Amino acid sequence: MAIPKDAVIRLDPEGIPKRWYNIAADLANLEPMLNPQTKEPVKPEELEAIFCKEIIRQELSKERYIDIPEEVRDNYVSLNRPSPLQRAYRLEKYLKTPAKIYFKREDMSPLGSHKGNTALAQAYFNAKAGIQTLTTETGAGQWGTALAMVSNLFDIKSTVFMVRGSYDQKPFRKTIMHLYGSEVYASPSAQTEYGRKILKEHPETSGSLGIAISEACELAAMSGGTTKYALGSVMNHVMLHQTVIGLEAMEQMKMAEIEPDYMVACVGGGSNFAGFTFPMIGEKIKGKTDCEFIAVEPEAAPSMTKGEFKYDFGDTAGMTPLILMYTLGSQFIPSPIHAGGLRYHGMSPLVSEACKEGYVKPVSYDQTSTFEAGTLMARTEGIVPAPESCHAIRAAIDLALEAKKTGEEKTIVFCLSGHGMLDLGGYENYLNGTLQSSALKE
Amino acid sequence: MAIPKDAVIRLDPEGIPKRWYNIAADLANLEPMLNPQTKEPVKPEELEAIFCKEIIRQELSKERYIDIPEEVRDNYVSLNRPSPLQRAYRLEKYLKTPAKIYFKREDMSPLGSHKGNTALAQAYFNAKAGIQTLTTETGAGQWGTALAMVSNLFDIKSTVFMVRGSYDQKPFRKTIMHLYGSEVYASPSAQTEYGRKILKEHPETSGSLGIAISEACELAAMSGGTTKYALGSVMNHVMLHQTVIGLEAMEQMKMAEIEPDYMVACVGGGSNFAGFTFPMIGEKIKGKTDCEFIAVEPEAAPSMTKGEFKYDFGDTAGMTPLILMYTLGSQFIPSPIHAGGLRYHGMSPLVSEACKEGYVKPVSYDQTSTFEAGTLMARTEGIVPAPESCHAIRAAIDLALEAKKTGEEKTIVFCLSGHGMLDLGGYENYLNGTLQSSALKE
Repeated sequence: MAIPKDAVIRLDPEGIPKRWYNIAADLANLEPMLNPQTKEPVKPEELEAIFCKEIIRQELSKERYIDIPEEVRDNYVSLNRPSPLQRAYRLEKYLKTPAKIYFKREDMSPLGSHKGNTALAQAYFNAKAGIQTLTTETGAGQWGTALAMVSNLFDIKSTVFMVRGSYDQKPFRKTIMHLYGSEVYASPSAQTEYGRKILKEHPETSGSLGIAISEACELAAMSGGTTKYALGSVMNHVMLHQTVIGLEAMEQMKMAEIEPDYMVACVGGGSNFAGFTFPMIGEKIKGKTDCEFIAVEPEAAPSMTKGEFKYDFGDTAGMTPLILMYTLGSQFIPSPIHAGGLRYHGMSPLVSEACKEGYVKPVSYDQTSTFEAGTLMARTEGIVPAPESCHAIRAAIDLALEAKKTGEEKTIVFCLSGHGMLDLGGYENYLNGTLQSSALKE
Repeated sequence: MAIPKDAVIRLDPEGIPKRWYNIAADLANLEPMLNPQTKEPVKPEELEAIFCKEIIRQELSKERYIDIPEEVRDNYVSLNRPSPLQRAYRLEKYLKTPAKIYFKREDMSPLGSHKGNTALAQAYFNAKAGIQTLTTETGAGQWGTALAMVSNLFDIKSTVFMVRGSYDQKPFRKTIMHLYGSEVYASPSAQTEYGRKILKEHPETSGSLGIAISEACELAAMSGGTTKYALGSVMNHVMLHQTVIGLEAMEQMKMAEIEPDYMVACVGGGSNFAGFTFPMIGEKIKGKTDCEFIAVEPEAAPSMTKGEFKYDFGDTAGMTPLILMYTLGSQFIPSPIHAGGLRYHGMSPLVSEACKEGYVKPVSYDQTSTFEAGTLMARTEGIVPAPESCHAIRAAIDLALEAKKTGEEKTIVFCLSGHGMLDLGGYENYLNGTLQSSALKE
């Protein structure tokens, strides 16, 4: 079939948003992070050991809009922003649905995912504060890749602690980070006191995200101020930076006169969901849209569909502040699904609060059904989605099939958070029938 | 550093060219393919066993322009055409060169390379002729991936014979083709008489491109007309379809008032070089530009820099027509460099003739120096190039360094033919110092 050329809705580079949207200004009952010792709200200065001042200001801000520095906007061009909004004509036709399906293309970044949107902003503010090195952890590798690349844009260094299991099993992620000039250590490593302690006690461990976070934070805290820590999800400033996705999408929907009934994105820590939906949820809070916002979790880590809304630690080791969020408990270890970016026990406090206040509807899927959706996306639209993004596609397809039943011309817009070029092992397992079900054991 | 937002020069979808440019109309001394038995020019009907009539018409055409059907233009949108032309400000800055460096981004296709430009056209014309299945060979895998994807766009099937060595060593390329719904066989296979013969004689063979071509052609020839063969390089109609690259680039250069001193692309069979440069070489033939055209070969397969200009077979088994081209001899086996797409003994007859007539300057590089250039591209521009494209980047960098010596503000435009997400093994070898030199043994 031919697809009309209007299938792709583009903005020119001047269409890159000038301000990030901060949903903290519009949520009614947002509660602060607490110091786990004192149970008092965390003070800005308590965060200074690991974050620079501007990042802390943004983390705690209740201003509705925060200006995007011109140099950040210029550099967003290097991430191929603005990203296209595209109509999935062929997927619609295959499904024989009256629904219109659109997707926002974060897969177009040279990094392959949306992670660069905040990595770039964090690198900029840290460079401007005179920081020489950013350090972070990475599990699946997308976040480490993003930080490694953007650090070069602002002439700072990056040090990444990669969970040993991934380091050994996903060697190409490590290769990309090296290619970008990053220092990459398998965690636990001999670079930190905490890492050495773990290595001594458990020399054969495959590591964990919790351990890697602790190592990165220790490196920052012990650097005497030259090194700061960068986080790829969960925290408020990360959600803030990601709103370029949704702000662009709103502009594109306005241009093409698209009124979404559903906006759909996958959720792990919450960053691509927040970035994609928060600006439109802001409209919903003002009563300006009836759009529903669907957050798609893996059944392996269903924090909003099955977790509790309570104060919990953001990491496994209990070193972070206490944050009010939907959580499966900080000791919860999700099964090793291919969508590594969704394997998190908790949920961004902003996404959690938006859900608690009724603006977000969480759903969850088994990974087999998500790979089925990703395969259909590849065969119809020609794009191989990341396993994380397959969750959003699965839910979008189900909404389109529901619309087929009812005969309603629903408009569904989902976020394609990344491509799957480095996740083909999961597709291979799906295609040859060896993919494991990932449902949570009850 | 900040890069200006004008770094990216875009066309809107209506800017997709309406006609392909056929350089055969403008080359003075083009000689026809010969039937190896009769030594007479190949007649159209001799090609009908494996190609549909419209493809044969294009292959033999001397018309200067051939209309691009509207349905092909529409579908080019699915390959993310028009592709951006981008200025490499950060690479320029790193090199401290007065030269301006631009690159045309064929890496933006969901297929990761330029190969879809002709795959899509071939699938369209065959589908329109009622063909049910396209069959082809693939070595490194880019071409097979492209054909697998575009076949879905026109509801036809694809069968790919993948050289067994690649099939076993590059399992993810096979996974993508399966994902797109293609039938993929390790070649030699039990699917064809020729494959069975080879398997019987050499059960342990890792196969070759020559064998895979023979299998694909046999499948087409023996199908009774339901299956045709598709080729990804070398032949005239392939070069024709690829000219969308150069036609877009010319329009973009016109918009941004860029007058190139050099246009640079890598060459294997010749398709991305031809597609990128032929429209501008057409201007050169008319005396309208002084631009120089640099074809970058691997030292492992230096057909234009070290080969002979003569009639030779296009394949190893001697089953194709005889074609007049630069060749290293049809029995020449290039060493196993990572740039698998450049491992070919000959050169497109159109590129060969343009070179013979003085319009193309061939150069060659060792693979180590090309990975060095690719790594620099990743660190400055954030993009990981395909090993093939690294050849073009190496030559562009050397021209920029030459301009630095002479102080001249040269304008260099190169073709980034694809990304390297599925070629990270080569980068890993480069980074850890285990990459082999690929120079031709004298």
